[in-house]
Amino acid sequence: MSPAQAIPRIAITPGEPAGIGPDLVAMLSREPCSAQRVVLGDPQVLLDRAEQLGIHLTLTPLDPDQPPQANAPGQLHLWKGCTVAEPVIPGTLNPANARYVLDTLTQAADGCLEGVFDALVTGPVHKGVINEAGIPFTGHTEFLAERCRASMPVMMLTAGTLRVALVTTHLPLSRVAQAITPERLEMVLRVLHADLRNKFPLETPRILVCGLNPHAGEGGHLGDEEIRVITPVLERLRGEGMDLTGPLPADTLFTQRHLRHADAVLAMYHDQGLPVLKHAGFGGAVNITLGLPIIRTSVDHGTALDLAGTGQAEGGSLHEALATAIHMVHARHGNAAP
Amino acid sequence: MSPAQAIPRIAITPGEPAGIGPDLVAMLSREPCSAQRVVLGDPQVLLDRAEQLGIHLTLTPLDPDQPPQANAPGQLHLWKGCTVAEPVIPGTLNPANARYVLDTLTQAADGCLEGVFDALVTGPVHKGVINEAGIPFTGHTEFLAERCRASMPVMMLTAGTLRVALVTTHLPLSRVAQAITPERLEMVLRVLHADLRNKFPLETPRILVCGLNPHAGEGGHLGDEEIRVITPVLERLRGEGMDLTGPLPADTLFTQRHLRHADAVLAMYHDQGLPVLKHAGFGGAVNITLGLPIIRTSVDHGTALDLAGTGQAEGGSLHEALATAIHMVHARHGNAAP
Repeated sequence: MSPAQAIPRIAITPGEPAGIGPDLVAMLSREPCSAQRVVLGDPQVLLDRAEQLGIHLTLTPLDPDQPPQANAPGQLHLWKGCTVAEPVIPGTLNPANARYVLDTLTQAADGCLEGVFDALVTGPVHKGVINEAGIPFTGHTEFLAERCRASMPVMMLTAGTLRVALVTTHLPLSRVAQAITPERLEMVLRVLHADLRNKFPLETPRILVCGLNPHAGEGGHLGDEEIRVITPVLERLRGEGMDLTGPLPADTLFTQRHLRHADAVLAMYHDQGLPVLKHAGFGGAVNITLGLPIIRTSVDHGTALDLAGTGQAEGGSLHEALATAIHMVHARHGNAAP
Repeated sequence: MSPAQAIPRIAITPGEPAGIGPDLVAMLSREPCSAQRVVLGDPQVLLDRAEQLGIHLTLTPLDPDQPPQANAPGQLHLWKGCTVAEPVIPGTLNPANARYVLDTLTQAADGCLEGVFDALVTGPVHKGVINEAGIPFTGHTEFLAERCRASMPVMMLTAGTLRVALVTTHLPLSRVAQAITPERLEMVLRVLHADLRNKFPLETPRILVCGLNPHAGEGGHLGDEEIRVITPVLERLRGEGMDLTGPLPADTLFTQRHLRHADAVLAMYHDQGLPVLKHAGFGGAVNITLGLPIIRTSVDHGTALDLAGTGQAEGGSLHEALATAIHMVHARHGNAAP
């Protein structure tokens, strides 16, 4: 999208076809939108699921040579070429369709890298069934980082005005402390700082940094990683002009006294940061991958197999993920909506 | 308090005299209260601090042989016999007064054990200055457990309708995983279950239990403590009739979908459970020690030395700690207020 263009073109991958991803995409078509939403998925799966939910969905093949145009009500654009290997039964995983799920992601990422799309919004995938199909896969974030040749993807979740990024993500708790190295912390802070500046955009992002230990180690009495690792890294990066506060005890950091003066929080590990965020998010949290050359947002929930095709799935997170992606596209071009 | 008596007698320890504890107690005297509030502290310290804040405080010596009577406006009752060793300068710690702080706690705990008081509400102490005075001290909870000969105190915090208990508390993060043993988890669950029944009272408490690892280990892919330790303990205790749900991923557990069906949450460690609770608590969280033969509640904050004597301290947590103690006293006698 050049700055003169007003309509972003957003790639959307519904994710696991047996889960609620196709439901959410069909539901999304009913919402008005200022962007051109382009689905990368099997059209028959989407149309079948829409019919099951009583939604009248029109899929219009995308002509990438035409300028982006907003979808009409009930319409989504379709990126042709992604089809499932075997028919989909809502709620029933099938390893035969795992390759299809990854194909939609690959085509979407490549389209972003080539400038066909301005951003990627992903629905939920099921790691287990992809691995069961014999394909090593640890998650969207790692997959996209490899495809985009990005060495340090950083996971950040947002809910309302709260943004929480993580130094470590999907590690057993017993391995977290040793994974908080000065090198890793510094790289994550650099990515977070740069992307808050470039993709949001915040001129001088104010970042609150959690300690690793309870009470941020209480002066070394409850662990010394704050003294040995975290504080020296923060001091070095403050010397470069970064606005970093911490290390703070996580249970005081997440109160309004601190949060109201901050743009983002950096938590050391998954369950230090995400319970607060999802508690505050009320089903509308968004997962954003920083450190990629593309804009990528995602729902914050799983495939909810038992809800697929029932009409019970809630679309709040996908709605917010799309809205966030659109906002980031505009912000990158310096014309963010207020 | 016998069931026939309507007025609980509550012991209050202001804690560290150089901190905001005396401020909060003086402020508390202005609030109407259905209980008899008895302060264990140096009267001169309390009167000086009240004067500094422009509060007219009356301290009336307690006659323990008289039935409890609610305080008049501006009045607190006083337990005589606790005096500081050296004059107190607000904001300035003095190891010479560390013994005094512990004396107030000891007398309050003994008074609860002897039936003089119905409950104990504690203000903030400063661990550092007590240790500096050469007295080993790891915290209120451990001190009171030893005084009451209780082998397994359990820390629970509450904010509004949210209750969060912890399996481990003030441990470096690197030592948490190995501390989650089947024996410890079972004992903590027994204490939590028993005290929710006896002190709140909830006939069949519904308890949500967090996993240790992100995504509760995701079937063993992100750590196996859920499979090896947590699930077997939960299954055994469910067999005894306990209503236990989990292990659940912490970031989905703390959403309303789960919380609205629960009476309490058991988190495996400090920063898994308390950031959410304090975020939700807006300065009114209360710390409750379960597993003691007495009722004990506490503020959830520290001594805030820089605010002592300034009038800037916020009394929400002490107010809630007292209200919770009063509620628990009534509940224990089966006549809980609605």
